[in-house]
Amino acid sequence: MKRIGLWLAVVATVAGVVVPTAIEAQQPTEEAAPVFVKKIPPGYRDWRLITVAQERGELNDIRAVLGNDKAIKAYRAGTLPFPEGTIIARLAYDYVPSEENNKVFGRPQSFVAGPPKNGVQFMVKDSKKYAATGGWGYAQFDDGKPADDAMLKTCFPCHEAVKSRDYVFSRYSP
Amino acid sequence: MKRIGLWLAVVATVAGVVVPTAIEAQQPTEEAAPVFVKKIPPGYRDWRLITVAQERGELNDIRAVLGNDKAIKAYRAGTLPFPEGTIIARLAYDYVPSEENNKVFGRPQSFVAGPPKNGVQFMVKDSKKYAATGGWGYAQFDDGKPADDAMLKTCFPCHEAVKSRDYVFSRYSP
Repeated sequence: MKRIGLWLAVVATVAGVVVPTAIEAQQPTEEAAPVFVKKIPPGYRDWRLITVAQERGELNDIRAVLGNDKAIKAYRAGTLPFPEGTIIARLAYDYVPSEENNKVFGRPQSFVAGPPKNGVQFMVKDSKKYAATGGWGYAQFDDGKPADDAMLKTCFPCHEAVKSRDYVFSRYSP
Repeated sequence: MKRIGLWLAVVATVAGVVVPTAIEAQQPTEEAAPVFVKKIPPGYRDWRLITVAQERGELNDIRAVLGNDKAIKAYRAGTLPFPEGTIIARLAYDYVPSEENNKVFGRPQSFVAGPPKNGVQFMVKDSKKYAATGGWGYAQFDDGKPADDAMLKTCFPCHEAVKSRDYVFSRYSP
């Protein structure tokens, strides 16, 4: 019994290492990729504006929401769900009072964007790849580095609140 | 004397009507145009983002500042003064709390863009045409209609405060 138990343990250990490797080698890269977006979509800073927003509390930022061409086209046409390949980007900046502007206005009323804050976030539409999270892959990059999966798992549960708008909070500003 | 006076009055009146018409016919349209921008620059809603800001007080808006290609190129390169043809657009929206977002966050912290508010404003760089106002023509359109000159005359005196940045308040957000 002792010997059999040992052999089973060895077999299980080897299988545990070898089998996933074999599967990874057989399947295309997409299948092996994590369910979250780990690469920054190129050129996003040149995308067009969807809307702006401001968060107080711990976030304390002012933000712009940009969209790639597919996103802007869908927003303007009122297309729901968003088409495959849609990407929405959320850029956030420190929310800071502008002493310079306030002097000109003669009263404290002006807030501007400070340095980037709270990372850059993305929603990428791929109904097959991200089927488990409403067809959207979620991403956040802090100083260019992708957030870990534990953080990204918190995205979808909140976005489910706006399932009727294909899980997208931001509305288009004309 | 009476007759001469009458004749002078007639000549002056006729001249007052006829002479400007003759000048208008001879000179290009630009020369006869007012010193403020009276036509909405086409396609501005597709321009790229410069930055975002928020104004409290009477304005109570949240805003995006967009730039045409020349503006974005100059901002990114740190070019001052801005080149001829630069146009900067300021789009403002009602600053409204988002009940929808606050429910998801579980606390009141989220503000979004409501309907357009406080007009759409532009600064157009043309050093010759707008020489009297630092080389920038100012414009505001409320529901597509240009603001009157009295309102537009209030732009330049404030912008003089940032003469060292070529009269432009907005800084580029990365």
